[in-house]
Amino acid sequence: MRYHSGRVALETGRRLEVLDVTGYVKRIVRESGIKRGLVNLWIPHTTAAITINEHDPDLWNDILTTFSRLVPIKGEYRHNSKYRWMPNEQNAHAHILSSMMKPSLTIPLEDGRLQLGSWQSILFIEMDGPRSRTVQVTLIGE
Amino acid sequence: MRYHSGRVALETGRRLEVLDVTGYVKRIVRESGIKRGLVNLWIPHTTAAITINEHDPDLWNDILTTFSRLVPIKGEYRHNSKYRWMPNEQNAHAHILSSMMKPSLTIPLEDGRLQLGSWQSILFIEMDGPRSRTVQVTLIGE
Amino acid sequence: MRYHSGRVALETGRRLEVLDVTGYVKRIVRESGIKRGLVNLWIPHTTAAITINEHDPDLWNDILTTFSRLVPIKGEYRHNSKYRWMPNEQNAHAHILSSMMKPSLTIPLEDGRLQLGSWQSILFIEMDGPRSRTVQVTLIGE
Repeated sequence: MRYHSGRVALETGRRLEVLDVTGYVKRIVRESGIKRGLVNLWIPHTTAAITINEHDPDLWNDILTTFSRLVPIKGEYRHNSKYRWMPNEQNAHAHILSSMMKPSLTIPLEDGRLQLGSWQSILFIEMDGPRSRTVQVTLIGE
Repeated sequence: MRYHSGRVALETGRRLEVLDVTGYVKRIVRESGIKRGLVNLWIPHTTAAITINEHDPDLWNDILTTFSRLVPIKGEYRHNSKYRWMPNEQNAHAHILSSMMKPSLTIPLEDGRLQLGSWQSILFIEMDGPRSRTVQVTLIGE
Repeated sequence: MRYHSGRVALETGRRLEVLDVTGYVKRIVRESGIKRGLVNLWIPHTTAAITINEHDPDLWNDILTTFSRLVPIKGEYRHNSKYRWMPNEQNAHAHILSSMMKPSLTIPLEDGRLQLGSWQSILFIEMDGPRSRTVQVTLIGE
């Protein structure tokens, strides 16, 4: 069993945005030389999320619209009131959604390939951009 | 440390449905001979989810009813409009819920036993059935 | 590659509550002597959750308020009706939220340190307390 890690650096461009990071993750997996095991994705952030779904920008719009309906950007949040003089801290919606979705995801690796289904892409969800973001990729395998 | 993987094939019967897959997963764990480590569950799908909760069909009904209230099957979704002529693609609700819940789950293994609590069962949640589905089980351990 | 596991015992004090368990998890990681790999957190419960976010009690209040708005404690739940004579079983809201958030989380470990970002703390979310709770910590690494 071996360990390998790598990082993907992202610059998001909008307040709410979905980025497909599948290609970056696949490159790190390939460079590792590991053929089977587990690939953990981790984002060191509290106002974003990492998940899996289809590469369809219309669907991404539906996802962000639904998130904003369930946990509105403008709402009665203590976190925002406390920091009311700091425009960058009006982001309780993003913290709450990130808490619900969590910053990690673990994907199986077999025959050197991430076991993604036909419609599965790895999606980074920005909920308080634009910001510099990181996806940490950790492999354990052989 | 060793690696082992297996697959569970499922046929779901309804649009929205919960199936208890605990027994299938335990069988693969037993066959692996691995006694301690991590057991990753992965579904290669974008309109379903895998999670843990009680084996109680009444509760499963509550879960599905709540999901449908939060993210209704009928709604204003761009994904559905784009594919408006394709009845099989009227499933943005399922993609959105799957994005929120993610297709993976990692359970610890000790003394040859999945570390499930007394009330914990492994539940596959179908959100756009009926379909053929897979649960991929990957073990890393000794 | 080595395996190590440890447990954190918690006593929650309220129906809905957030506890920061970062320090307990770090201690188990330190005791393991493992320097790099994966750290899995698992709670053997169906009415609580484990996640990551900022150590900010005001934000924790926002999180719990939002959860209660999305999945109210008082609602029309079959699980609750079935057990209507058992005050301890009026907890469908907690089962549903726990199903959505799941009982596991896997964090990468590098240079002997959990790869938590500056604002990331490990949070246990009680949704049906007060109760005795456990966080199981499993490491795979070298």
